Amino acid sequence: MLVRQLREKIEMMIPDSYKDLVDLAGSLRDKVKKAIKVNNKRRIFWEKFFDVENIQSFLKQNKTLAKRFNSLLSSMKNDTGEVYLVGAGPGERDLLTIRALHLMQKCDVCIYDNLVSDEVIELVRRDADMIFAGKKRDQHTFSQEKINNLLVKYAKKGKKVLRLKGGDPFIFGRGGEEIASLMSHNINFQVVPGISAANGVAAYAGIPLTHRDYAQSCLFLTGHFKDGKIDFDWPKLITEKQTLVIYMGLLSLPDFIRELVGHGQKKTMPVAVIESGTTNSQRVIVGNIGNIKSKVTRLKIKSPALIIIGEVVKLRDQLKWFK
Amino acid sequence: MLVRQLREKIEMMIPDSYKDLVDLAGSLRDKVKKAIKVNNKRRIFWEKFFDVENIQSFLKQNKTLAKRFNSLLSSMKNDTGEVYLVGAGPGERDLLTIRALHLMQKCDVCIYDNLVSDEVIELVRRDADMIFAGKKRDQHTFSQEKINNLLVKYAKKGKKVLRLKGGDPFIFGRGGEEIASLMSHNINFQVVPGISAANGVAAYAGIPLTHRDYAQSCLFLTGHFKDGKIDFDWPKLITEKQTLVIYMGLLSLPDFIRELVGHGQKKTMPVAVIESGTTNSQRVIVGNIGNIKSKVTRLKIKSPALIIIGEVVKLRDQLKWFK
Repeated sequence: MLVRQLREKIEMMIPDSYKDLVDLAGSLRDKVKKAIKVNNKRRIFWEKFFDVENIQSFLKQNKTLAKRFNSLLSSMKNDTGEVYLVGAGPGERDLLTIRALHLMQKCDVCIYDNLVSDEVIELVRRDADMIFAGKKRDQHTFSQEKINNLLVKYAKKGKKVLRLKGGDPFIFGRGGEEIASLMSHNINFQVVPGISAANGVAAYAGIPLTHRDYAQSCLFLTGHFKDGKIDFDWPKLITEKQTLVIYMGLLSLPDFIRELVGHGQKKTMPVAVIESGTTNSQRVIVGNIGNIKSKVTRLKIKSPALIIIGEVVKLRDQLKWFK
Repeated sequence: MLVRQLREKIEMMIPDSYKDLVDLAGSLRDKVKKAIKVNNKRRIFWEKFFDVENIQSFLKQNKTLAKRFNSLLSSMKNDTGEVYLVGAGPGERDLLTIRALHLMQKCDVCIYDNLVSDEVIELVRRDADMIFAGKKRDQHTFSQEKINNLLVKYAKKGKKVLRLKGGDPFIFGRGGEEIASLMSHNINFQVVPGISAANGVAAYAGIPLTHRDYAQSCLFLTGHFKDGKIDFDWPKLITEKQTLVIYMGLLSLPDFIRELVGHGQKKTMPVAVIESGTTNSQRVIVGNIGNIKSKVTRLKIKSPALIIIGEVVKLRDQLKWFK
């Protein structure tokens, strides 16, 4: 039984084409040795040669093996490194995507934020250089500009740079700014979406973000602003059948409550605050606009926390499943 | 090199505790044989015993091995099956989560929608029973009620039922209704979030959904209504610095354009329509509120398609990377 389970897992990780490839690699060994004299470069060549993505895209494109081999060989001449902008999801390691995991195992350098959980960090290739970029509220260890520059610097050295961000890089992740900088330096990159906090936390808290009876739309906001001021078109945030999700909103929760009530939100509207969602230390506090502030204070809720406001919160009573 | 890469992958899939566990399993073999006479039940027992999740949660909870063994043994007496409500992500198989993949390899029955891509379906355990539940616009192969009933029926037979949905089950996935039905029948389940279409498609189209200069919030809507009517509080959909994402909106695009323009949206507001996002057949059409309809018609865009409206669409020019 154990052997069957392990075999399944292993089979899944290995493309069918490996056998042919291993044969081919053997027959090419001498040629590569002649073409690439530097040991380290040869190591990189073979690493690329056996890259799962390369093999898959190669099979899809139906090129001949020889052609593929030659183009790979020639690409080694001007290798300038690349950047992987990867979403690490909400915290739980099993919520990483397969591609995220693959790139984490492949990188030379990893630049990560404090929103990436320890159990995820542990999966990064052991001999990669780890650089902590910080980013807590009011405590930006590195400026965005410094991060952008680091990505460019390492990529230009020929490194595979993993930029690992909590959640999804394109939802309140400033991923756009980082790849704009890479583009302007002609550096190759790819973007890997991650499970955003809203999706992960909602699933584990038993709160569907949309529901045919309670919510036909869902609005994502951030409560974290660099100058500490929140500025929304408040009346538009109060919409029937719409779920409001506030990222990093714990500190600005009093401001949100004040403005929403001031603009007519009813005090009985349900609110959930979820601390460390999806992890083993998840805590879910349910209340309403009128009483959630005092509950959060009394129960000493800490960041990272996600706030969900809307009728869908009522469903948790029925749907909570994760303990 | 190849061996190192494979070893890394395999190590990652296997918890450190396997050795102890294998020893323990050996010493328990006779006891289990006596306690569970039915061959098939004994198989299920060992399957559960070696379940990665069980092992991990067991280690975290610090129970003694003996206790764990006994509770597992007693739980076998009234085994009623369970349901995994799993988000399959936007299409590309590497965007599955590790947990999704694990449950896909473990299920006895898989009930899936037409939004789940073929390359994902191929990863479901080969001897699982596959049931297609349909769900195209105006062509619900199975009613929601029938799906709910099937999940209950198979779980009650003791099966592990995989309910596989495109994207994320809690964003326009009606996941809430399915688990409400399971709850009311006392059936065990878990919910696994998936990369929602908005996140996956945005990443692969090079369009960040939020950006400090262009969008401080992001609103998700669906263009697919069972009675064919769309009914929103339109003025609230026209908000500065907000990205609008419309799921399944291709057929109702003319309605959205008419209402948005009617309520004051400027015709120059950028719009992107993405067909088959994240897959090898991805097509991205960029225009504005004024001309997108004719572009979509001329280029014969087909479902599944995602619509993104907002200033962030302009960033694609700079940020597109996926071909």
